[in-house]
Amino acid sequence: MNIKRFNASLIVLTTTIAFAVTSLVSADDGYERYRNHPHFAPLPAMPPIPAHNSMTPEKIELGKMLFFEPRISASGVISCATCHNPALGFTDRIPRAVGHEGQVGERNTPTVLNAGFLGAQFWDGRAADLEEQALGPIEAPVEMAMDISAAIDRLNSFSEYRERFADAFPDESAPVNPDNVALAIAAFERTLNTPNSPFDRYLQGDLNALSEQQKRGMAAFVDNGCQACHRGAILTDSSHHRFELPGSTDEGRYLVTGDPADRFAFKTPTLRNVALTYPYFNNGSVDALEDAIQLMAQQMLYRDLDADMIADISAFLHSLTGEMPQFTVPALP
Amino acid sequence: MNIKRFNASLIVLTTTIAFAVTSLVSADDGYERYRNHPHFAPLPAMPPIPAHNSMTPEKIELGKMLFFEPRISASGVISCATCHNPALGFTDRIPRAVGHEGQVGERNTPTVLNAGFLGAQFWDGRAADLEEQALGPIEAPVEMAMDISAAIDRLNSFSEYRERFADAFPDESAPVNPDNVALAIAAFERTLNTPNSPFDRYLQGDLNALSEQQKRGMAAFVDNGCQACHRGAILTDSSHHRFELPGSTDEGRYLVTGDPADRFAFKTPTLRNVALTYPYFNNGSVDALEDAIQLMAQQMLYRDLDADMIADISAFLHSLTGEMPQFTVPALP
Repeated sequence: MNIKRFNASLIVLTTTIAFAVTSLVSADDGYERYRNHPHFAPLPAMPPIPAHNSMTPEKIELGKMLFFEPRISASGVISCATCHNPALGFTDRIPRAVGHEGQVGERNTPTVLNAGFLGAQFWDGRAADLEEQALGPIEAPVEMAMDISAAIDRLNSFSEYRERFADAFPDESAPVNPDNVALAIAAFERTLNTPNSPFDRYLQGDLNALSEQQKRGMAAFVDNGCQACHRGAILTDSSHHRFELPGSTDEGRYLVTGDPADRFAFKTPTLRNVALTYPYFNNGSVDALEDAIQLMAQQMLYRDLDADMIADISAFLHSLTGEMPQFTVPALP
Repeated sequence: MNIKRFNASLIVLTTTIAFAVTSLVSADDGYERYRNHPHFAPLPAMPPIPAHNSMTPEKIELGKMLFFEPRISASGVISCATCHNPALGFTDRIPRAVGHEGQVGERNTPTVLNAGFLGAQFWDGRAADLEEQALGPIEAPVEMAMDISAAIDRLNSFSEYRERFADAFPDESAPVNPDNVALAIAAFERTLNTPNSPFDRYLQGDLNALSEQQKRGMAAFVDNGCQACHRGAILTDSSHHRFELPGSTDEGRYLVTGDPADRFAFKTPTLRNVALTYPYFNNGSVDALEDAIQLMAQQMLYRDLDADMIADISAFLHSLTGEMPQFTVPALP
């Protein structure tokens, strides 16, 4: 091939690619106003990283070990990964968490997936961030039931942990401490994200990433006002709302603030991977996503949706399942 | 390079390789009679596969899912992987197993690693093979505490499990049944092997795979008679022996056979990966490998070993840690 013909081919090829890219991002599949809705955004590759908790490989690896470490529980068999089970979408798929000596907690286990994109943690938002959340379940009597100083003693008894804490927190004289346990676990959790769901790919211009039913469901989601609370890249307003959940007597946010306006209010959960994180609501009393959609429509939007529309919205919500984080189970000391 | 010179080079190269291989396998490092001891053998790549349980990819994958499936426990949070934890050498590294509602069992959890090479399973050998063992912990009231028919109902409620059982057991009309749960779990467990330990590489001719201390430990292991019971590729005689373990009142094999000669007898455990499978003995009462070595020498060989020899044998036993099986955590329905 001579240079002239090569150049000519290159121009044709470039033009073709440019045309293809243009068609990809500008084509209208009839749902453009929904796709470009200001309340929708694709999931960023990484959540915000707080200035006081840089994500070094040493810290992330230590955090992964601690996340899988059952010996920082009183029984020696319960770890973060027991309820936030990687085989089950980093949740447990039972109504309410089961912890120390088989005690059943008050609330459904939220997934850790994409939790770094959330602000406050727990159903009642009582922890400001992942760092503040991390030690709660270790110490909670119905969860891991471990005195944190006993947990630190146990970690300190392993030379490998002493070395790994020193590597992860190099400027500290006593790095095996509760604050650093929380920092390391939070750093690991910020790696547990699920990008590239069909919904994300659709927002980014791949109009075939959603089925026709999913597109109808997306439109119904917007037109009925679901996105008033479930919005942004993580599909939550990070706020608390009251609603009456059949069978629940949990006073929710009120137990944190004491404000009567917060009685029975719970944080809006993310809808990312919602198809994987059943059963639903603060007490896990609703198994089917369709039932959860109907209940929300009735309680928050004062609407009864018909079965077809619920099926469409359910199909749309299934498009929020992203790529699961890849990792190997750590080898603990 | 002309053909003649190429051929000449080839001859030199071939001779060099042949010489290198010969030196590798015939060199004497002073421990040849220990290395070639008839009671030692490298771990085969795979354990024997029973004729009635072929290892198809579909069955292995299903077995992996069932191994990690907590919803076949009464609480919904305990799976095979809770006590046979892949992060902890497929055991739990606590003295005695903790199961349903925090109950503490009578015995230490044996590792699943290389269990396919064993004959009988459990500390008392009451199950003839992995298939016979697999359902025991699901039904045991102090472990997963799940009625097996309830477990089958739960599995049957998932279309994905119905499909996967049908794929794994293609000729059956009702493939989701207890026998097939056991077959699938056993097939997965036969993949959990740890070849290529330093000891294996040494037996296969790499004389540098063991340190000098490990070689001294190997010699002491043979000279003291440890290999009378800990022998063969899996380093057990698959038999039961009586011994007095301080603090243990467990009658062991006697509870299975009713034969007074079996009172306080337990199956010889494999020594493969013994450095990872602490604490030791049927009640997990001994934390340190050195203490376990001393206790065995006293009880079984009527010898008191000095600290140096114990350190050597411990170093040798560390050479039995092989390559951990690689796998990804399954995504459960």
